[in-house]
Amino acid sequence: MAKYEAKGADYWVIPDAYIPEKSSGELTSHESVCVLNTASEDAHLSFTIFFEDREPMEDIPYTVEARRTKHIRTSSLLKEGTPIPVGVPYAIEVRSDIPIIVQYSRLDSTQAENALMSVVAYPAK
Amino acid sequence: MAKYEAKGADYWVIPDAYIPEKSSGELTSHESVCVLNTASEDAHLSFTIFFEDREPMEDIPYTVEARRTKHIRTSSLLKEGTPIPVGVPYAIEVRSDIPIIVQYSRLDSTQAENALMSVVAYPAK
Amino acid sequence: MAKYEAKGADYWVIPDAYIPEKSSGELTSHESVCVLNTASEDAHLSFTIFFEDREPMEDIPYTVEARRTKHIRTSSLLKEGTPIPVGVPYAIEVRSDIPIIVQYSRLDSTQAENALMSVVAYPAK
Amino acid sequence: MAKYEAKGADYWVIPDAYIPEKSSGELTSHESVCVLNTASEDAHLSFTIFFEDREPMEDIPYTVEARRTKHIRTSSLLKEGTPIPVGVPYAIEVRSDIPIIVQYSRLDSTQAENALMSVVAYPAK
Repeated sequence: MAKYEAKGADYWVIPDAYIPEKSSGELTSHESVCVLNTASEDAHLSFTIFFEDREPMEDIPYTVEARRTKHIRTSSLLKEGTPIPVGVPYAIEVRSDIPIIVQYSRLDSTQAENALMSVVAYPAK
Repeated sequence: MAKYEAKGADYWVIPDAYIPEKSSGELTSHESVCVLNTASEDAHLSFTIFFEDREPMEDIPYTVEARRTKHIRTSSLLKEGTPIPVGVPYAIEVRSDIPIIVQYSRLDSTQAENALMSVVAYPAK
Repeated sequence: MAKYEAKGADYWVIPDAYIPEKSSGELTSHESVCVLNTASEDAHLSFTIFFEDREPMEDIPYTVEARRTKHIRTSSLLKEGTPIPVGVPYAIEVRSDIPIIVQYSRLDSTQAENALMSVVAYPAK
Repeated sequence: MAKYEAKGADYWVIPDAYIPEKSSGELTSHESVCVLNTASEDAHLSFTIFFEDREPMEDIPYTVEARRTKHIRTSSLLKEGTPIPVGVPYAIEVRSDIPIIVQYSRLDSTQAENALMSVVAYPAK
């Protein structure tokens, strides 16, 4: 069986994260952290969430299987059962035990029509 | 005749790809993988498409001619006649035999008004 | 107590900045410079604002505390009490005494519906 | 007088360029190539425009003065009096005699409401 290499970096940052409080129209406001694992082995991720005025939520685990992508809704990330609060500016740090590639996208449907933004996360050293 | 150099990288990744199911208003929802080949020779590309819960569609070929750009609609990429499914999160890997530069853009017209997003793909090593 | 490392770069640039003059609908047009400081010590930033046809506004100070993010509204940056003018193209330079990560986002609500854009700033050397 | 350093890179690429044919609502559809010149000396730029099916428009000159930004409308770039065609996919190469930083943004107002996208250009080697 072919052995595929892990591509990318093992540490990524997204400074501008925000879960909109409102949705209208056909689609729900949300953010996705989109991860690609090109390798033949699973990637074990750990998310840390930073805020403006309180301590970080540290080390939320997540697995992306071998040769798969996951588009992870930030609202699904839980720290001891507690989700990331909505309507609050925050930032995301992603660590992985093998190299991955990370992109962040937000759909804002506060108004009836949608607004979209996307960035490739920053692979800080 | 001038000889132009190939610029960029030969391996690029786009973790957040998605073909919207619906269009309304004047423009059709679509994604484009935009490639620039600055060289005096053709670039031979190979696309692999990754999913959340099934095996990748591997090695879809595409040629970008010398000193040309191509804005490739993802809906036009076929693996043995089968297109990428719509309404499904996926990720894109682009390999090329010579360096190129890759950008990804999405127009979402699910609502009557349009939403746009764009990233330069990540040139993973 | 754990000692956390400063991640990122100490010099970042955003060439395309612009504060929209108008807002309509539910949200106010604005820009944010979003900074993450992963370190155990505070980051001391200095902003310089460049224009098309006049001298830069130099060295506006800002502090991002240890292990915190700040999503800084550009309209809050003051040089000797004077804000950045609205409706004028400009560019932003960010220096920091320790490495940070910087992202820039703009919400334009000139029309009733919103438009969003975002980029990770460029860590120039 | 202080001597400021040129920051960034001297070669940048934007693969996805497109001048929308239509505008509606309050703002005009347009693209901007936003350049920051941090140096104490002028930057002399040269634009080359690539197409899908014809020869490039080469070497359109442009100057960005010392310590200034320019947000250049692509519709203002002329090759021997001829502008870039509208409604046609193209790509942009920017060369400069000193390092600069380049960002690309597009406002699409084909529909009454606006859509925005932006990327930092790719500093290819």
